[in-house]
Amino acid sequence: MKLQPLADRVVVKPSESEEVTKSGIVLPDTAKEKPQEGEVIAVGPGKYEEGKRIPLEVKVGDKVIYSKYGGTEVKVEGVEHLILRESDILAIVSR
Amino acid sequence: MKLQPLADRVVVKPSESEEVTKSGIVLPDTAKEKPQEGEVIAVGPGKYEEGKRIPLEVKVGDKVIYSKYGGTEVKVEGVEHLILRESDILAIVSR
Amino acid sequence: MKLQPLADRVVVKPSESEEVTKSGIVLPDTAKEKPQEGEVIAVGPGKYEEGKRIPLEVKVGDKVIYSKYGGTEVKVEGVEHLILRESDILAIVSR
Amino acid sequence: MKLQPLADRVVVKPSESEEVTKSGIVLPDTAKEKPQEGEVIAVGPGKYEEGKRIPLEVKVGDKVIYSKYGGTEVKVEGVEHLILRESDILAIVSR
Amino acid sequence: MKLQPLADRVVVKPSESEEVTKSGIVLPDTAKEKPQEGEVIAVGPGKYEEGKRIPLEVKVGDKVIYSKYGGTEVKVEGVEHLILRESDILAIVSR
Amino acid sequence: MKLQPLADRVVVKPSESEEVTKSGIVLPDTAKEKPQEGEVIAVGPGKYEEGKRIPLEVKVGDKVIYSKYGGTEVKVEGVEHLILRESDILAIVSR
Amino acid sequence: MKLQPLADRVVVKPSESEEVTKSGIVLPDTAKEKPQEGEVIAVGPGKYEEGKRIPLEVKVGDKVIYSKYGGTEVKVEGVEHLILRESDILAIVSR
Repeated sequence: MKLQPLADRVVVKPSESEEVTKSGIVLPDTAKEKPQEGEVIAVGPGKYEEGKRIPLEVKVGDKVIYSKYGGTEVKVEGVEHLILRESDILAIVSR
Repeated sequence: MKLQPLADRVVVKPSESEEVTKSGIVLPDTAKEKPQEGEVIAVGPGKYEEGKRIPLEVKVGDKVIYSKYGGTEVKVEGVEHLILRESDILAIVSR
Repeated sequence: MKLQPLADRVVVKPSESEEVTKSGIVLPDTAKEKPQEGEVIAVGPGKYEEGKRIPLEVKVGDKVIYSKYGGTEVKVEGVEHLILRESDILAIVSR
Repeated sequence: MKLQPLADRVVVKPSESEEVTKSGIVLPDTAKEKPQEGEVIAVGPGKYEEGKRIPLEVKVGDKVIYSKYGGTEVKVEGVEHLILRESDILAIVSR
Repeated sequence: MKLQPLADRVVVKPSESEEVTKSGIVLPDTAKEKPQEGEVIAVGPGKYEEGKRIPLEVKVGDKVIYSKYGGTEVKVEGVEHLILRESDILAIVSR
Repeated sequence: MKLQPLADRVVVKPSESEEVTKSGIVLPDTAKEKPQEGEVIAVGPGKYEEGKRIPLEVKVGDKVIYSKYGGTEVKVEGVEHLILRESDILAIVSR
Repeated sequence: MKLQPLADRVVVKPSESEEVTKSGIVLPDTAKEKPQEGEVIAVGPGKYEEGKRIPLEVKVGDKVIYSKYGGTEVKVEGVEHLILRESDILAIVSR
């Protein structure tokens, strides 16, 4: 069973804390809007504008830093996921 | 008797609680904006922009996760339905 | 004497309560924004955008469910009517 | 001496109360935003959009129902008039 | 020394009270947003939209009724002027 | 060392009070949004819209009247400057 | 490991205080919205508008003055960085 997000929405599986530390990115606790790291699980077809879909920049498998604000939490087969808009994703993490 | 929604509106019949559990998606009670699962019953022709209708991504029969915020409750022949905009639909559930 | 609404406005004559019950649609009292059923009496020529009028989806004679919010009440020859924008109409009721 | 309104503005001379009653339209006192009846005295050339003027729907001599909200009162040679945007006009009254 | 306003801005010299009375336009003291009469002294080249300037409707020498709201007062060689956007001008007064 | 402003931003060096008086423009102390006079030191390339830059109306060396609201103060080699958007500039002063 | 920002986002490494003083730009403590100096570390591909990416004005290596408002702090391998939109960058500092 899977989720197919609509428009410019993305399904993200949040990274567990250990993984975050290994990647070398430590997200400060004191930030007003706390960003998080996770993996992209599914992407929408893009927003429809002036007759065509605007392709998303992120793809399935990307590790991303995102702002939790605006996302909606759902549990898929017992695992917590987040459905958010691509604009809530700040950057792709590469190594 | 049926409802034909206008523009980008969609008529959704909320799933009953048992069905939600079987699908493997459990929606947390604590989420600020609680999403729900339901089935698409009717779809509008799409919003009119720059001379044409923007087709909807969802179709009749789709199982969807949606945000209740913004929708309007109506009872059709005794059964509760929701009229909402497609932008209130987060994802299509497939199996 | 009649009213010719401007742009995307629509004149609606609210259904009386008995009629609402017969149609099988019962509108809950507890809804935050209470929708209503009525009949379209007159429609505007559509909003002007990028050099042409956007045609309305509803036509005279349609039974519609609408949100009262945003509409303006007027009495035409003693009968109460509502002038509202087409975007305040949620769905067309067919039988 | 006359007023030539700019853009999508319209000069309206409010009808006197007697006239309102004769037309068969009675405007309720209790409406939140009280509409009024009046006659169009002068119209602007229309808003400028994408290189051309959008023509107004109303013309001089039209009897209209309008929302007073947003208009500005001026006295022309002792008679009270209202300068408002065409979007504050709800409908043209015909007989 | 003179002021060349930018974009859709206009420099207006407010009429003195005596002049207002002569023109036959009396502006009520009780209006929420009190309009004023004045003479256009300088006009900007128009707003830039989609590759060209949108020409202003008013020209130097026009007597206009304007809304003071949004304008900025400056004194040019001891005389009070107002810099405002053309959208704050309601109508041109002709005789 | 110099500042190259981005988009439609402009760097302005505020005039000293003596200079303001000489120019014949006296800015009232009581105005709600107090305008100021200054000299344009650097201009951005213009905002990017529909595939091209919109050229600025002001150029380096222009004496301008501007609204301080929205600008950001910086000191360049000990002298106070202001970085503001061109839309905060009301008029060019010529003599 | 590096961050690839999305759309019109930029990764900036804030300058240390000593460096700020040497450049001759001193940012006042009392400014309402305190700007800061830093170096651009990574830039996004630009926002997508009307079928293409709008290129960024800043490039990797640029010294910039930016407004901290709206940015999100992240630590990359122990060093504090800021992810912000290009519109939060006021000017490029050159020498």
